[in-house]
Amino acid sequence: MDVLVVGSVAFDALETPFGKVDRTLGGAATYFSIAASFFVPVRLVGVVGDDFTSRDAAIFKGRRIDTRGLERVPGKTFFWAGRYSEDMNQRVTLTTDLNVFADFNPKLPLAYRDSKFIFLANIHPSLQESVVKQVKGRPKVVALDTMNYWIERTPGELRQTLKLVDILVINDAEARQLSGKYNLLQAANDIFKMGPRILVIKRGEFGAVLMRGKDVFTVPGFPLHDVRDPTGAGDCFAGGFMGALARAGRVTDASLRAAMVYGSVMGSFAVERFGLDRLRTLKTREVTARARRFHGLTRFKL
Amino acid sequence: MDVLVVGSVAFDALETPFGKVDRTLGGAATYFSIAASFFVPVRLVGVVGDDFTSRDAAIFKGRRIDTRGLERVPGKTFFWAGRYSEDMNQRVTLTTDLNVFADFNPKLPLAYRDSKFIFLANIHPSLQESVVKQVKGRPKVVALDTMNYWIERTPGELRQTLKLVDILVINDAEARQLSGKYNLLQAANDIFKMGPRILVIKRGEFGAVLMRGKDVFTVPGFPLHDVRDPTGAGDCFAGGFMGALARAGRVTDASLRAAMVYGSVMGSFAVERFGLDRLRTLKTREVTARARRFHGLTRFKL
Repeated sequence: MDVLVVGSVAFDALETPFGKVDRTLGGAATYFSIAASFFVPVRLVGVVGDDFTSRDAAIFKGRRIDTRGLERVPGKTFFWAGRYSEDMNQRVTLTTDLNVFADFNPKLPLAYRDSKFIFLANIHPSLQESVVKQVKGRPKVVALDTMNYWIERTPGELRQTLKLVDILVINDAEARQLSGKYNLLQAANDIFKMGPRILVIKRGEFGAVLMRGKDVFTVPGFPLHDVRDPTGAGDCFAGGFMGALARAGRVTDASLRAAMVYGSVMGSFAVERFGLDRLRTLKTREVTARARRFHGLTRFKL
Repeated sequence: MDVLVVGSVAFDALETPFGKVDRTLGGAATYFSIAASFFVPVRLVGVVGDDFTSRDAAIFKGRRIDTRGLERVPGKTFFWAGRYSEDMNQRVTLTTDLNVFADFNPKLPLAYRDSKFIFLANIHPSLQESVVKQVKGRPKVVALDTMNYWIERTPGELRQTLKLVDILVINDAEARQLSGKYNLLQAANDIFKMGPRILVIKRGEFGAVLMRGKDVFTVPGFPLHDVRDPTGAGDCFAGGFMGALARAGRVTDASLRAAMVYGSVMGSFAVERFGLDRLRTLKTREVTARARRFHGLTRFKL
């Protein structure tokens, strides 16, 4: 089954201890789409300016990514500049130019309206809500990512949107901020009362945790010799997770666990090179092979 | 097979967001011994002052802990005071009074000299070395813990001792400091050249990682609703790990993996209450039951 994603398509300026690029294609919806397209066809909703060329769009060609929902409007594409700390566990945002994203009002093409697996990447919660409301019938999964900016500035709109959400996909700090609880099991209990019945907590190099009722599943981060650029890792995690879940076609304990592994796999590829570079050349057989390696990483007998 | 441990037996003053105690029995060797004794008999080597009463010693009674190697000398027992941050991920040392530990020169009772599984808890690397050298024959496993203090102040002695070590059990920051490499796979490669052939990295709430050649195994931290006091968690991890390994009697991929799970289990119990409180009442069947829950935490099918 196809996955629908709404979120940013952007140009990024990136600086890590391993290098620097002044302008490279990025954005949560871009990373997500490419990662998810290894599993199922993707329907992309976003907006770009007239500086977004056919050369930029080429990343979506030859993949199962429908870009009919990617609007082109006059003006400049969303621009983000960030710098990572020496250990790459922290980053500072240097510039955020919303540009055409400032007046974005997502409109779903008719062909997208039957979507059953929906991912609301990190944008204003009211835009996220408007996308869900344009979908006809009852989706199987609505998943949402958000960040401290929306938790602090639009708490009412976020709470409203969370009521429509099945799976919340955020990091530790965001789960703690949203719930006001430091302990993650306690945070999950609070978040379950807000709407989501499943919480996925992304932990960077430490992997991710899935919480569903009282069930907890953990997946490690894949051990890598070289980590060049953490940009997009969380979005690729979400893309692998949702892509694998949509391919399974249903939400079960087993499909969620496998989806967590594929999320971790896709996040681990993303960080091996700058920006989208690793994903550009990634093959499905590499995804499959790395996923299998998670058995060796976690297998034990008492 | 019995496990020999050398390390501190101490009185601790502890302050966490959940409470405060002015003086409670602690020390790495204390936590380690109790944790390991759930798996095999333990031989304890350490030193206490004349303020260490039979009431304090009672914690070792009724357990499989041989205290013939616990010296009693005039003076005061080692004292440590620490305060944990709000999120308990950081701690400051308020006081370290070495007291009788300052002149400690560990002497192995004859009955300990055939030990095959040896754990050198975090003390001066020359004392750790002297304990290994007193053991007759070839031990099966020498494992060692250390900390930033020794890595910075006694690098030569530490390097010397590491040559005798099979398994290094430290945390992320210590692995990075010792190797000068941020990336943990690269850090492991450097550490393997120093002597240890196995590296166990403790990651607090994120669990632990075992590295052996190119093989990597990860174990999560057990998800807890209440974490009261992180003191001793790393020592209990080491106790569970070494205890389980000694019970298996040999170092294989399978015994190491199971030992990692038991390490994480013992660490998770330690933090549920203040100081040694949770361990005092802990039952073997609780240990077994929690270890089994790690299957549910990590199991998946692709």
